[in-house]
Amino acid sequence: MATPSTDRRIDKLIHLLVKNATVVVPGPKIASEIGVTRFKVWEWIQKLRSLGVEIRGVPATGYQLMKIPDLLTPSLVRPELGAQTIGHVMVHYFRTESTNDVALELAAEGAEHGTVVVAEEQTAGRGRLGRTWYSEKFSGIYMSVILRPPLAPAAAPVLTLLAGVAAQQAVISSTGLAVDIRWPNDLLVNGKKVCGILTEMSAELDRLHAVVLGIGMNVNHGQMPAELRTIASSLRLETNRAISRVQVLVALLRELERHYGLLLQEGSTAITERWAAASSFARGKRVRVVTAAGDMLATTAGLDPSGALRLRRDDGREESLVAGEVVEVK
Amino acid sequence: MATPSTDRRIDKLIHLLVKNATVVVPGPKIASEIGVTRFKVWEWIQKLRSLGVEIRGVPATGYQLMKIPDLLTPSLVRPELGAQTIGHVMVHYFRTESTNDVALELAAEGAEHGTVVVAEEQTAGRGRLGRTWYSEKFSGIYMSVILRPPLAPAAAPVLTLLAGVAAQQAVISSTGLAVDIRWPNDLLVNGKKVCGILTEMSAELDRLHAVVLGIGMNVNHGQMPAELRTIASSLRLETNRAISRVQVLVALLRELERHYGLLLQEGSTAITERWAAASSFARGKRVRVVTAAGDMLATTAGLDPSGALRLRRDDGREESLVAGEVVEVK
Repeated sequence: MATPSTDRRIDKLIHLLVKNATVVVPGPKIASEIGVTRFKVWEWIQKLRSLGVEIRGVPATGYQLMKIPDLLTPSLVRPELGAQTIGHVMVHYFRTESTNDVALELAAEGAEHGTVVVAEEQTAGRGRLGRTWYSEKFSGIYMSVILRPPLAPAAAPVLTLLAGVAAQQAVISSTGLAVDIRWPNDLLVNGKKVCGILTEMSAELDRLHAVVLGIGMNVNHGQMPAELRTIASSLRLETNRAISRVQVLVALLRELERHYGLLLQEGSTAITERWAAASSFARGKRVRVVTAAGDMLATTAGLDPSGALRLRRDDGREESLVAGEVVEVK
Repeated sequence: MATPSTDRRIDKLIHLLVKNATVVVPGPKIASEIGVTRFKVWEWIQKLRSLGVEIRGVPATGYQLMKIPDLLTPSLVRPELGAQTIGHVMVHYFRTESTNDVALELAAEGAEHGTVVVAEEQTAGRGRLGRTWYSEKFSGIYMSVILRPPLAPAAAPVLTLLAGVAAQQAVISSTGLAVDIRWPNDLLVNGKKVCGILTEMSAELDRLHAVVLGIGMNVNHGQMPAELRTIASSLRLETNRAISRVQVLVALLRELERHYGLLLQEGSTAITERWAAASSFARGKRVRVVTAAGDMLATTAGLDPSGALRLRRDDGREESLVAGEVVEVK
């Protein structure tokens, strides 16, 4: 693995400062509670400041946190999750190449169901169809969840719809925005993409080993790069206010847990029905279908039980789309 | 990766000795051709001898190979493959944990279609359904092939049948034995298993990244471990003669290339038809079906186009088996 995950002791330091946010915490107390030298504490304080965390230093006394930082570290996220399985184990990076790559590697090493990998920045974020995912530091949520579902590989596509519905619910509850889902799982706000999902799996041909749900969400980006501005946006740009990434991440992990439970208890139709109710793309939408074999125009006609999108072609024939993407035609 | 692959310079030494098998090759000549010291040559000769390669040392003169060794190194295998794609890149190990693990890792790093990983010994060989694969050193062929087929993940199961048919043809042409295929791809000789295949993939839900065909074949095992003796055998035990592993491996790689070409040119029915013609399990065989959901008795009734096994249950209903295994009932 190219980059080491965040030192758990830095996370302990953040936890200690957050717990004592109204007072100045003595340096020696911090050092002894974490089990490092006072110099190491000073080094880490410098590092956190360089990451934008506001910490007041009182000479010869200690440190005080001026504002709860909006970091996605386990100490700030896990207490909000209660006893749920997804996020029970969290691996945090300040920077990594791709959280999906880390998660696939951890899964190969046996990481348990529900393990979450989250990064403040990705240097080689990946999207669907071999594309890159723009991952500005401290602005987005770049996260991968390892699932070990009791499903055959052929039944796995419903998980990608599940992730889309869960992410939509999390954004709605955190921001109040109106959020559409474009098949299979892009979240759109005012027609622009704010969240993309890359689902990968490792499997035998008849047995899943692990599914990795990679979710990239644009939360606090103050502006999008020029080349993305017409097609992508962030929750902050669409609400005109700063959004707590921690709050959105917590909502997202809770919604994933809830919808995964629904899938196991009620089966895949519980997910496809929710998806169909939540997406303007489910029925009667005029779309251009982009596949490896070429483009065509069609009208959407619901989901089939596996999660494939039913399409009615202009010559009246119907078919199911399992791969590729659709673009609204206006 | 736990173990480094075989030093290419050792393979060069083997090549040099094989090329000059009738004469004594001077030590200094070997050293200068490979670009190492004479002491390093001496060390490697010791290593090869410890692996069973018979090399005569002539004091103050050089070395002579007494017998072409039956090693699966690229220098002994690749010249037999011509310009074919499968095996164009070969990575050789004297010992590794699992060639499938190495191949999956190489695939994640971008290894090209047709890359072959082969080992003389596996210390943690894996089989289907989470089982281990007994991998006695220098006796079997333990090999994994990386494929990047233009198929959707749902269409990938035909590859596992393809591997079974190719392996069957390779064993028949190398030994003359009668070889049956038990669904999906166990090779049986006189009712005992001599070859198992573990197919794994990494994929998005709608796009294959890579398929790894792992093939473990018992070739020269003088006896099988007591606990396997009633169900497994080797080509040597069934023919009562030593079998060239190199010859079987070359035949196997050629058959894989040929059948892969058939799949691309003629589609999956070219494979399922060949499989059905080559297996006594295809039709009318009374079997016990072992699945995660429990066992049942049924009669086989052909393959469906995806490679699933059609089963006729005793109550007359038909169903398709995509996962699990079947055992003949006599």
